[in-house]
Amino acid sequence: MAELRRDPISGRWVVIAAERAQRARQHGAANHSTPAEPCPFCAGNEALTPPEVWAARASNTEANQPGWRVRVVTNKYPALDCHSRSPDGADRFYQTRAGLGVHEVIVECPDHVTNMAELGDDQVADIVRAYRERLAVLRQDPRWRYFLIYKNQGDRAGATFEHLHSQLVALPGVPRDARDEIAGAKGHFAATGRCIYCEMIERELADGKRIVFVHDQFIALCPFAPRFSYETWILPKDHAAVFENSAPRELGQCAVALRETIRRLNRALDNPPFNYFIHSLPADGSLPQSYHWHLEILPQIFRAAGFELGTGANINGVTPEAAAELLRDVAL
Amino acid sequence: MAELRRDPISGRWVVIAAERAQRARQHGAANHSTPAEPCPFCAGNEALTPPEVWAARASNTEANQPGWRVRVVTNKYPALDCHSRSPDGADRFYQTRAGLGVHEVIVECPDHVTNMAELGDDQVADIVRAYRERLAVLRQDPRWRYFLIYKNQGDRAGATFEHLHSQLVALPGVPRDARDEIAGAKGHFAATGRCIYCEMIERELADGKRIVFVHDQFIALCPFAPRFSYETWILPKDHAAVFENSAPRELGQCAVALRETIRRLNRALDNPPFNYFIHSLPADGSLPQSYHWHLEILPQIFRAAGFELGTGANINGVTPEAAAELLRDVAL
Repeated sequence: MAELRRDPISGRWVVIAAERAQRARQHGAANHSTPAEPCPFCAGNEALTPPEVWAARASNTEANQPGWRVRVVTNKYPALDCHSRSPDGADRFYQTRAGLGVHEVIVECPDHVTNMAELGDDQVADIVRAYRERLAVLRQDPRWRYFLIYKNQGDRAGATFEHLHSQLVALPGVPRDARDEIAGAKGHFAATGRCIYCEMIERELADGKRIVFVHDQFIALCPFAPRFSYETWILPKDHAAVFENSAPRELGQCAVALRETIRRLNRALDNPPFNYFIHSLPADGSLPQSYHWHLEILPQIFRAAGFELGTGANINGVTPEAAAELLRDVAL
Repeated sequence: MAELRRDPISGRWVVIAAERAQRARQHGAANHSTPAEPCPFCAGNEALTPPEVWAARASNTEANQPGWRVRVVTNKYPALDCHSRSPDGADRFYQTRAGLGVHEVIVECPDHVTNMAELGDDQVADIVRAYRERLAVLRQDPRWRYFLIYKNQGDRAGATFEHLHSQLVALPGVPRDARDEIAGAKGHFAATGRCIYCEMIERELADGKRIVFVHDQFIALCPFAPRFSYETWILPKDHAAVFENSAPRELGQCAVALRETIRRLNRALDNPPFNYFIHSLPADGSLPQSYHWHLEILPQIFRAAGFELGTGANINGVTPEAAAELLRDVAL
């Protein structure tokens, strides 16, 4: 049963999910090389996962049977659990909360593919649509204030399974980094009446040095102060706070932009491991005028290490100007 | 030339140190297997590093020659530089600062050893003494407000070189995580008149579940809300805010506690990669009564990944109670 614990000194909350260690013990590093262990995400092995909560599948096929293109299931070893009953703790020094939340896995393809760039635009569009469908449903539940779609591709980026998948969490509160970002955007809006992301996009388009590409509806850029080398953000060019309010055509264009970014990273950096996540407006009453949803891709080439863990700041050895130039100019 | 950049949205500062990418390109992942590239940290190769700023060496030997046991040099590819002249930026949206600071490397042994537990207690004591000597000197310089000793052991923990070494940075400001920790300690002191770490130690000793070992002057424990599985903290049992004020006998006992903790981690977890860092009182006027120096060891078994990068919170699959039991009971 998951539990949230607060460090009494820093005030930092941690999710203690003791059942997850078991998962790691069973599967070790991400691999599909142990013949004794079939991949639970491959079509035909649907019984190895919890039942599906959503799928893009052929109309004549049944739930939890092959025939799906993208499949969403509850995480078998959830970090958070909507049935968690561990009570909030009474100790004021060592504070705890029930680990309430939702933790789902989006299985991104029926075949055992391990690099997202190998999927076609249509398949990536189905994945992005799965994100939207699940988030739109979960946003209706008043228990959840924050939603995160995230992906770990590659062992060094923390993937436990190599078969392409991403994850979704719904949380009862807004976590620290999201809070900082939203507070910054809110402050800028209060001071200037403008969305800070819209202003950033305007500046970046005028300057050009950190642009990776510009499509009809989306822009990809290396941000001014990236935490990681070759960090790239994808944003809708026009103001939009809530990812899951995107129209079907926008989702399709988002998929094209995502796949192109990954293809560029793969070509320029020899298939780097990476993480990505989508930051969308929380369900905490934040103003949609002040926030702008976006997807951040963080290649894991140089590891965050002792300096980062000891300070909370990052050292980045590649300027975003050099990173954008490389990604922009690479032959696809 | 290093530059600090502020993300306009989150307010997060990042060190952009463009010369460091070069280092990584030269050395790739940490290894000593390329015969063409001699290890710059091995005795005899002193010319491959910048000149030493401190060394524990035999009295009849010369600087930058063999005969040393521990050697401190300026980082050849510093993330921060005390001669940085890049001006503070004038743009209010995209703020920059000169990357002023000190970045040194503590070479921990003359031979090509890659696991700290293989060193004897005397050698680890020399290393801890090197930390103290350099920090005591740098603390005199009014430009620096914060000091961090940190170590990356193992490729997966971000080590660029496998030859045992740690690093030291002196910074012109107090970074985010340190600020949170110090603010929490200060708040507790203001509310209760007590050091929060002293209170934590008292509670942990009374409870016992998270204790790894208790020596004469030091205690090792798994903290109540650990970010990483098997995270272990070493603290002086008696109140002490400034690591570099430690007496020689305390430094020796600190070395014994550090080496024992690493040996326990190695035995229990098969030589895990890890990071550690020392948190000591900043030179920013913080009250020494409210702070308590300590060393945090963070094994890198399960990677921080998309969830952690997208939220700033951590999921930990091992309770600190289970971790402490394993580390406490393992046969040495």
